Amino acid sequence: VTAEIVSVGTELLLGQIEDTNATAAARVLAEAGVTCQRRQTVGDNLDRLTEAVRQALSRADLVLTIGGLGPTEDDLTREAIAAALEVPLETDDELLARLQESVQARGVPWVHSLARQALRPTGSRVLPNAIGTAVGFICEKGRKAVTALPGPPREFSAMLDEHVRPYLATRGGGVRIVSRVLRVAGMGESLMEEKVRPLLGSGNPTLAPLAKSGEAHLRITARGEDEITIRHLLDDMEGEVRARLGDVVYGVDEETLEACVLSLLRDRKVTLATAESCTGGLLGGRLTSVPGSSDVYLGGYVTYSNEMKLRALGVAERLLREHGAASEECARAMAEGARRATGADWAVSVTGIAGPTGGTPEKPVGLVFVGLADEAASVATQHRFGGDREAVRHRSTQAALALLRKAVLSGGCGSS
Amino acid sequence: VTAEIVSVGTELLLGQIEDTNATAAARVLAEAGVTCQRRQTVGDNLDRLTEAVRQALSRADLVLTIGGLGPTEDDLTREAIAAALEVPLETDDELLARLQESVQARGVPWVHSLARQALRPTGSRVLPNAIGTAVGFICEKGRKAVTALPGPPREFSAMLDEHVRPYLATRGGGVRIVSRVLRVAGMGESLMEEKVRPLLGSGNPTLAPLAKSGEAHLRITARGEDEITIRHLLDDMEGEVRARLGDVVYGVDEETLEACVLSLLRDRKVTLATAESCTGGLLGGRLTSVPGSSDVYLGGYVTYSNEMKLRALGVAERLLREHGAASEECARAMAEGARRATGADWAVSVTGIAGPTGGTPEKPVGLVFVGLADEAASVATQHRFGGDREAVRHRSTQAALALLRKAVLSGGCGSS
Repeated sequence: VTAEIVSVGTELLLGQIEDTNATAAARVLAEAGVTCQRRQTVGDNLDRLTEAVRQALSRADLVLTIGGLGPTEDDLTREAIAAALEVPLETDDELLARLQESVQARGVPWVHSLARQALRPTGSRVLPNAIGTAVGFICEKGRKAVTALPGPPREFSAMLDEHVRPYLATRGGGVRIVSRVLRVAGMGESLMEEKVRPLLGSGNPTLAPLAKSGEAHLRITARGEDEITIRHLLDDMEGEVRARLGDVVYGVDEETLEACVLSLLRDRKVTLATAESCTGGLLGGRLTSVPGSSDVYLGGYVTYSNEMKLRALGVAERLLREHGAASEECARAMAEGARRATGADWAVSVTGIAGPTGGTPEKPVGLVFVGLADEAASVATQHRFGGDREAVRHRSTQAALALLRKAVLSGGCGSS
Repeated sequence: VTAEIVSVGTELLLGQIEDTNATAAARVLAEAGVTCQRRQTVGDNLDRLTEAVRQALSRADLVLTIGGLGPTEDDLTREAIAAALEVPLETDDELLARLQESVQARGVPWVHSLARQALRPTGSRVLPNAIGTAVGFICEKGRKAVTALPGPPREFSAMLDEHVRPYLATRGGGVRIVSRVLRVAGMGESLMEEKVRPLLGSGNPTLAPLAKSGEAHLRITARGEDEITIRHLLDDMEGEVRARLGDVVYGVDEETLEACVLSLLRDRKVTLATAESCTGGLLGGRLTSVPGSSDVYLGGYVTYSNEMKLRALGVAERLLREHGAASEECARAMAEGARRATGADWAVSVTGIAGPTGGTPEKPVGLVFVGLADEAASVATQHRFGGDREAVRHRSTQAALALLRKAVLSGGCGSS
């Protein structure tokens, strides 16, 4: 079974918005075993839109259209699909009644053009929209079919899952394609690639490195006729990768490093505090992005100025004078101070030079120290990050989380 | 002058990555006055890729291809363009020598397939790549032309600006389309829409509201033959919008609310501290994302636990018992405490219930208080945010920055 995607909207041709809907649709097609061979994007122009749908139908079994289902005269997808399939448009009376009701309920006056939203190709099946007023539809003719969904991303995404995914399950069934992402922290991308190089040439599943800010990902993509075969392929490759990389693989798919670290600390009943200079609160922000983080994370200090490092964390003035704020000594003193001030079991700290200014030959932009203190000792690691201010700051939080994870796995910061 | 964009890569058809390159290319075309009527996306398949380029050339003057210029056998864009334009491919000897040099410099062995990167259609002009090894090219034939750029986004984006933009300036010159975004904070999207409704129907420039998390944007899009006409159109509409909305318009295009607030505080020589509960450091993170923020922002406290609110900020235990942490009283006490503990002129605080759990009928998820303290007084505002945990947290930082901005503009928190 083959498919094409047609995205509709002049704003897409002007580059005013990203076409995230088409990406989501493509993923759903691949997972259903439907081969997507082409995507097209056209503006709100009836001739070009009709031609695009007609061409897509001449090549593929299924055509998914995105957008152009609103009430205005620019919304032409209904007309284009009817013309391409050569079926008339008709008003769906039930739909019209429901539209009038919902408009009345909102206390908005009825405008005649709103009735356009009740039009659909004769013989099509309506796909309800739980969020907005524009419904979608599926129209089959012979062995061909067109699905039409509205463009607002929240509505599109809900209707894709609710209506199109199950429909594809009844039509698809060829070779399905499913990906799994393995997430690596605490090992550089080039070293990671070096270690898995023999696996990169494999055919099914394939393995591809993806560069991310501050961490490295490996995407495994498997093809197969059914879910069990695919899962075995993914599991086997994941096993091969883990055997080569060891415990730097911290998570799979959407699992974040902060969630992983919090769960490790929770298992060991360790509480945590933070002390941040150049990251300015981003590390705390990442830790608290995980629901339920409060049973591990007590809080922390954003000691952006030296004065704050003295006041809140008790970092010695002499230390700052002798070593500066971007130093191993300061990172350790910050972690120790945060641990002392909060009563947390462990504290982690970040201090460095995020740029774009403030660098010197001895202490260049991108130089960052991450500190960790527990009941027994404190340690600090030194990093040289590339990239702009945001990249340096994100990589710094990543390094702090990676250091925490390593320390937990090895039983404390004294032994890490 | 018309153009089409052809994006190349099976990973795009599988939905594994967003096609941000095509969006950037579309914007550059619009700004150059080149009408983009269609985009196509095809996989790494020579027949389909050649057909897509050929079709695009039959309809448009210019075709921009993205991707497929690497050294592997899957990189077929060179072959497809040569076939579609009916010109032979040739090896560029100078390019080949440079490739061999750079491979040698990296200490990597030379593989024969690398020579593919020195192939280009006869008569084409090479577009150098300052970041990676894959060069691009422009190939003209009669009145038609094809530009080819490599797919890695950093390389694509640099080469788009450096090579394609100036080339379009020589070819374009029809109706240019330029957008400007006005950023609004401290006013809900529906109220904003209500106030500018009479302007929404205008033809040139057009005005379109864009929903963003925690703030509202208005995009003005103007069409014109030359830059001066367009700038006048944009300026006039901006003036109309500002007259209707007043000072809730805080910035234009990429200007962020945090940068705006810091610059207002800097002008008034006011220093700032933060005290964050449910946002966990995100507010500090946003403030310190602005280079040079250290002359205004001293630092702050992430008081995620009640214990930390007592210890670090001196919030009274009785206050927490009687009103809870998600309360106006606690928000004010946190701001006052942060001001006292840091010596900052002003302090801003955030406390509330980010969810997904922790809500009660009296204090539901999304209830957030923002506090502000200056030398004279303290105030707090109450908010009910919708959306998931991340949305609530982002909107909370947004509300804190909007409150700060309002207070600065009105001369202090006592009068805001």
